[in-house]
Amino acid sequence: MASESGRKPELRKDLVSNHWVIFSPARAKRPSDFKSKAPANPDQPQHQCPFCIGHEHLCAPEIFRVPPDNPDWKIRVIQNLYPALRRDIQPSSSHNHNLVANSVLDGFGFHDVVIETPLHSLQLGDLSPQEIAQIFLAHKKRIEQLANHESIKYVQVFKNHGASAGASLSHSHSQMLALPIIPPIVSTRLGSTKDYFDQTGKCCICEIQSEDLLINASTNFISLVPYAATFPFEIWIVPRYHSPHFHELDAEKAVELGGLLKLMLRKMSLQLNDPPFNFMIHTCPLHGDGSELAYTHWFIQIVPQLTGVGGFEIGTGCYINPVFPEDAAKVLREVIVP
Amino acid sequence: MASESGRKPELRKDLVSNHWVIFSPARAKRPSDFKSKAPANPDQPQHQCPFCIGHEHLCAPEIFRVPPDNPDWKIRVIQNLYPALRRDIQPSSSHNHNLVANSVLDGFGFHDVVIETPLHSLQLGDLSPQEIAQIFLAHKKRIEQLANHESIKYVQVFKNHGASAGASLSHSHSQMLALPIIPPIVSTRLGSTKDYFDQTGKCCICEIQSEDLLINASTNFISLVPYAATFPFEIWIVPRYHSPHFHELDAEKAVELGGLLKLMLRKMSLQLNDPPFNFMIHTCPLHGDGSELAYTHWFIQIVPQLTGVGGFEIGTGCYINPVFPEDAAKVLREVIVP
Ligand SMILES: Nc1ncnc2c1ncn2[C@@H]1O[C@H](COP(=O)(O)OP(=O)(O)O[C@H]2O[C@H](CO)[C@@H](O)[C@H](O)[C@H]2O)[C@@H](O)[C@H]1O
Ligand SMILES: Nc1ncnc2c1ncn2[C@@H]1O[C@H](COP(=O)(O)OP(=O)(O)O[C@H]2O[C@H](CO)[C@@H](O)[C@H](O)[C@H]2O)[C@@H](O)[C@H]1O
Repeated sequence: MASESGRKPELRKDLVSNHWVIFSPARAKRPSDFKSKAPANPDQPQHQCPFCIGHEHLCAPEIFRVPPDNPDWKIRVIQNLYPALRRDIQPSSSHNHNLVANSVLDGFGFHDVVIETPLHSLQLGDLSPQEIAQIFLAHKKRIEQLANHESIKYVQVFKNHGASAGASLSHSHSQMLALPIIPPIVSTRLGSTKDYFDQTGKCCICEIQSEDLLINASTNFISLVPYAATFPFEIWIVPRYHSPHFHELDAEKAVELGGLLKLMLRKMSLQLNDPPFNFMIHTCPLHGDGSELAYTHWFIQIVPQLTGVGGFEIGTGCYINPVFPEDAAKVLREVIVP
Repeated sequence: MASESGRKPELRKDLVSNHWVIFSPARAKRPSDFKSKAPANPDQPQHQCPFCIGHEHLCAPEIFRVPPDNPDWKIRVIQNLYPALRRDIQPSSSHNHNLVANSVLDGFGFHDVVIETPLHSLQLGDLSPQEIAQIFLAHKKRIEQLANHESIKYVQVFKNHGASAGASLSHSHSQMLALPIIPPIVSTRLGSTKDYFDQTGKCCICEIQSEDLLINASTNFISLVPYAATFPFEIWIVPRYHSPHFHELDAEKAVELGGLLKLMLRKMSLQLNDPPFNFMIHTCPLHGDGSELAYTHWFIQIVPQLTGVGGFEIGTGCYINPVFPEDAAKVLREVIVP
């Protein structure tokens, strides 16, 4: 640790997340010196990887594949063998809303895995924009199926890549967890984007001022570092058009989105030494009354794992980010992708 | 991963934290099989450790020591050399409360380190109850000093032990970060304990039902696993008497608290293979209007680091805990400490 800049620390809260983040240059190397010390596993071909083509019998049941009914599949959506929530129990009809007791709900929900490629040797960033588009369209199709369950309130799509980002299997995959509740980060976001809408009549994500936070842009999407990024080199990919639900994505825009995601993953890999990372698709809850559609706007959050957390973050929910978002954006904007 | 129990998953929200946690036995080993795979660093004597007695010149300035003015000190409270916030800048007199803009505050605050022992070879759990009491009383004294600053709203006391709990130095220490804001976890807790108080006239932490969640008890304190523990084998130590602020602790109770903390650290170490851990002191914000004193109640949270997190937790703020709190409490209750 050595402070190169005379810059002062700052606390920032952005309109979307509504959480304070401490920007602390004294705790940083220079932004361009950030490199992952634990690069995501170099890919080791695995003898008995359940996600490889030909090993389908090692997996929990399939939900669908792309293309359908084809032994030469490109993507498989399957049940998670160790699901956090279970599809085979009754959804709780209601839960104890009584404030004088703790609350409990039966663990009804769906936990699926999306195998993103038949080949063990390829990672997400190695796929073409068209292939990445097919993965997004698989997420979309599965969300549409899950939305048929009245008691599913939110579907979290996420990816863990690399051991220190939580991945227990190295074959490229993402996960989908369909929940009977609206999770805390989602309800906080709904609250703050609603406040902004009530005051201005506008969606605050449509209004994002991006100039010095911008990384790259395409016709329908931009990638940027958020104003109060929780993590160093955190990236958001945001549609430039208003769209509450990720599953409104069409096939043409999916290819464009695939291209921009690929570019971000390649820039991250080149600049930050192939870091472990997570990505999350943030979207609007299901089955709202419709009033939320005006102020919700889906986006993708990408988080390279470069720093750990400690007791301060666990205790307060407040994060210390050593890299100012403008600096991270500038570094990422300038990465040359061969 | 292998499910031994036929138990179904459950979602729980406790009255204090107000966050849903997913309890998912399918993702667990048996509770008694949990062992840390990355035990906290076996202690390596360090040649140039700045926190060792005799190396005071390597440290940022001292605030006070125990006993005062004694070269043979037992505890030192010093400035953090790489502070997240700075004591030498003006506190922002007010910040932009305008909802149509992002918010920003100058990074005023205090970031201190408490060196808990002069000796590199001792860890917190090795100290006597009386020695641990002196550390708590040093935290108390420093909070009282920080409370003199009108713009400091909250002081977070925390400890990182072991590399995967965030510790960058192995010499036993804790940290104190004095903040110009009330952090999100604290304001959420204030909101939920206030709701309970408004409905019942009681403090919900005074009312904690502990039977099957209890680990150990002493005259003035209990240790337990919270009803909706975020992390496997998370432990809370709670005063049995109503007390909003940690810094109300007196010298006699500090020794009793030191004894119970030592017992918990030893049980954790024996049962969970000397895991890395964090502890956090949760207390009432400073400079409230007094109405909050009836429903705030300090406690200590201890979190062994046994599992990582992934994209689901980052995206939702919702955690998956593979161990039911009753099971963790039973295991910890039954550990025999030689
Ligand atoms: N044969 C098979 N058929 C079907 N499914 C199979 C299978 N073998 C394994 N699986 C499932 O495949 C998934 C692979 O997921 P990841 O590697 O992304 O992380 P995991 O869910 O283990 O935990 C990470 O992500 C979660 C959620 O963020 C965190 O709680 C956790 O701490 C972190 O390690 C696992 O959930 C596993 O249950
Ligand atoms: N000579 C010296 N004099 C005075 N102070 C000195 C010093 N040399 C080092 N220090 C300070 O001592 C502290 C030691 O702290 P820890 O080992 O508990 O974790 P650290 O704060 O590095 O980060 C962990 O905790 C924070 C907060 O939870 C997380 O943000 C982070 O990711 C995690 O690694 C550091 O803050 C360091 O700045």
